[in-house]
Amino acid sequence: MSRFLAPRLQALDAYTPGEQPRDMVYTKLNTNESPFAPPQAVIDAVSAAEVADLRLYPDPTCRQLKEKLAATYGVKAENVFVANGSDDILNFAFMAYSGNGVTYPAISYGFYSVYAALYGAAAVEVPLKEDFGIDPADYFAARGMVVIANPNAPTGIALSLDQVESIVAANAENVVLIDEAYVDFGGESALPLIDKYDNLLVVRTYSKSRSLAGARLGFAFASPAIIADLEKIKYSTNPYAINRLTLVAGHAALEAEDYYKNCCAEIIKNREDTALKLRELGFSVLPSCANFLFAKHESISGAEIYAGLKQRGVLVRHFSKPLIADYNRITIGTKEDMQRLIAALQELIGGRK
Amino acid sequence: MSRFLAPRLQALDAYTPGEQPRDMVYTKLNTNESPFAPPQAVIDAVSAAEVADLRLYPDPTCRQLKEKLAATYGVKAENVFVANGSDDILNFAFMAYSGNGVTYPAISYGFYSVYAALYGAAAVEVPLKEDFGIDPADYFAARGMVVIANPNAPTGIALSLDQVESIVAANAENVVLIDEAYVDFGGESALPLIDKYDNLLVVRTYSKSRSLAGARLGFAFASPAIIADLEKIKYSTNPYAINRLTLVAGHAALEAEDYYKNCCAEIIKNREDTALKLRELGFSVLPSCANFLFAKHESISGAEIYAGLKQRGVLVRHFSKPLIADYNRITIGTKEDMQRLIAALQELIGGRK
Repeated sequence: MSRFLAPRLQALDAYTPGEQPRDMVYTKLNTNESPFAPPQAVIDAVSAAEVADLRLYPDPTCRQLKEKLAATYGVKAENVFVANGSDDILNFAFMAYSGNGVTYPAISYGFYSVYAALYGAAAVEVPLKEDFGIDPADYFAARGMVVIANPNAPTGIALSLDQVESIVAANAENVVLIDEAYVDFGGESALPLIDKYDNLLVVRTYSKSRSLAGARLGFAFASPAIIADLEKIKYSTNPYAINRLTLVAGHAALEAEDYYKNCCAEIIKNREDTALKLRELGFSVLPSCANFLFAKHESISGAEIYAGLKQRGVLVRHFSKPLIADYNRITIGTKEDMQRLIAALQELIGGRK
Repeated sequence: MSRFLAPRLQALDAYTPGEQPRDMVYTKLNTNESPFAPPQAVIDAVSAAEVADLRLYPDPTCRQLKEKLAATYGVKAENVFVANGSDDILNFAFMAYSGNGVTYPAISYGFYSVYAALYGAAAVEVPLKEDFGIDPADYFAARGMVVIANPNAPTGIALSLDQVESIVAANAENVVLIDEAYVDFGGESALPLIDKYDNLLVVRTYSKSRSLAGARLGFAFASPAIIADLEKIKYSTNPYAINRLTLVAGHAALEAEDYYKNCCAEIIKNREDTALKLRELGFSVLPSCANFLFAKHESISGAEIYAGLKQRGVLVRHFSKPLIADYNRITIGTKEDMQRLIAALQELIGGRK
């Protein structure tokens, strides 16, 4: 840290991304990526001609991609915002709307508390219920902006659309941000509510269900006024933040919806199969609507499971935090990935008996 | 604008990117892009296999690219920061270092005043000299962070390394940011000073001389402490902001330095040839060390030149600002591009006689 850094930033704890060790080839179940490559249409779209055109700036308005997203999701282009990953959108929303404080679940995406600290927002972290679910009523008299991941991470537990609507309706004077990074794996989207509630901001990403984590593309749906706010911040920070190749890849991906639906169906099947096997091995597993499972073993600590799996070439994500330190978050991969996970766990658990 | 937006942001005037009209095919000399495609090595690097790997997150540490940049420029990796375009770096620097105010030339890159307003920094805008140059002495008792584009935009005029050093040395208690977006077209880089001055931040981009405006890649050199500050902000806002394809393109570009040197030499030659022809046509042209010229005609207004060129299929950039409204900024393209510019001007000027 330099002697010049603003005092407010000196004290900040930055976000810690999932590890990416390079000492061996791991079965990588730690960052909720898709095990499936993007479809051929995306690979074809990133052509040599498009790479040659990198000499030119991208379209900062992202007009074509916005129109395609609008058509795909049945909304107007003025209801759509696109950005460099959903983190970009979360960052902008905290900058724009957390002035009166921000309320979010105490166990959720770890970046919410970083953004709150970055913008000096008074943060209310609401405990989860004992079963790790969210009680909508806990957010009916919330302070400032409300941020809910639905399905939540790292639990995977989802709220119903009615429950989400009850939170949005109860907070008419503040923005309610629903972070739907994992919605395509079994959640219900709040998208149908954006015309009814001008305080609703629905955030989505290409990183999970659309196999494009490496392209950096997030999008959001909201009232035209909220979209205009986000555009203003984009044009005041980094207007060209989405590169040309990501724009064409993101457009092509929207023409391969059947491919992605099949990928999601396979993830859901693998998730349910894996949950069964984990339970047979002595794990309790939260009911997940996401592309991961959150599981704790009846007798082995979360840290030991994590380390034992890593030693056996399987990476999962462990959070050394109160209440969840006994759990690990396990991304759902291919059938073969999950067979390797179960085999590693069998060895790990068997070796301790 | 929504009723929820923070009051500070409501008043903000966002940056206005150069226009990208689609009504016809223009000779595009308005956003200082390179007229040359990136080299074959870059096109090959963005392979189908790399596109398939987009399912995985990029390396947020950008380790390989940093090491390659360090080797290319003869510094250590800990002296290097990479980000989503140099705008990203400027944004972070204003967030980190403008708490005591910020001082920059009154005529320079238009984004500096946007960042100052965004972070509520007291901004001192120092007038240029009558010849549109920067007087280093004007910055010896500067308020807060100092930001100097060298070569400056839209003038193209460069300071010598000695002049830059005098500013850095005179402001030991504040960061001095030298924005070297255009340095490869004839400027002197302040890079050799980073070991001597812990307050110096040198910002560079792939968008101009490396033909990769559409990839979004900026980099910076500074003391390890300043780099650590910028990393902290990156990890508190959007850690994965550089996509996978840009990382490989940026790496490959560093292995094609000869190609780029030839491109820069051709731009410089075209710039000097064009300056001569513009003077013959009655323009006064500032002495440029960049990939653009800033020129005003002896009898035709800047707005009329701009509109007349656009009508004839040539886009240049006009700023309706005091002192420079008579000028246009003309990006240097290929020889053929510049012939089209001169032909359009001959017609425009001839038609008025």
